[in-house]
Amino acid sequence: MKAVVHVGLKQGVLDPQGKAISDTLLRMGFDEVNGARIGKVIELDLEDIPADRAADRIKDMCEKLLANTVIEVYRYELLD
Amino acid sequence: MKAVVHVGLKQGVLDPQGKAISDTLLRMGFDEVNGARIGKVIELDLEDIPADRAADRIKDMCEKLLANTVIEVYRYELLD
Repeated sequence: MKAVVHVGLKQGVLDPQGKAISDTLLRMGFDEVNGARIGKVIELDLEDIPADRAADRIKDMCEKLLANTVIEVYRYELLD
Repeated sequence: MKAVVHVGLKQGVLDPQGKAISDTLLRMGFDEVNGARIGKVIELDLEDIPADRAADRIKDMCEKLLANTVIEVYRYELLD
């Protein structure tokens, strides 16, 4: 089974990488850009385990490794 | 308007960051993990412009800055 984990900065947390991207886009002439924020997507390839067990395990992975929950939020989807 | 751009490595391109994550998850006891691949999500905040014009502009941003099309693929969604 596959799982997709989205990790992004919490609202209000400064995003220097996003700022660099929006500044660069503006400098390149993309005047319609008001801002940009960057997040990560982690696609996990997992053994087939029951969905409720998988959800618990993925939550655990997020809390322990994939996200820094002080400054980041995460969400995940389970795919077949 | 908002746009969400997803950028990921092409299939077959080595993903050392994903490898590091899956190796670490395994070492932490998440034995159900077979692999991981990492991608980026860029949320763009844009001036309101017509959707077809926005699509052209975003494609241009991807080709010129947001994605390295030699090794990466991108896709985008326009939100209101």
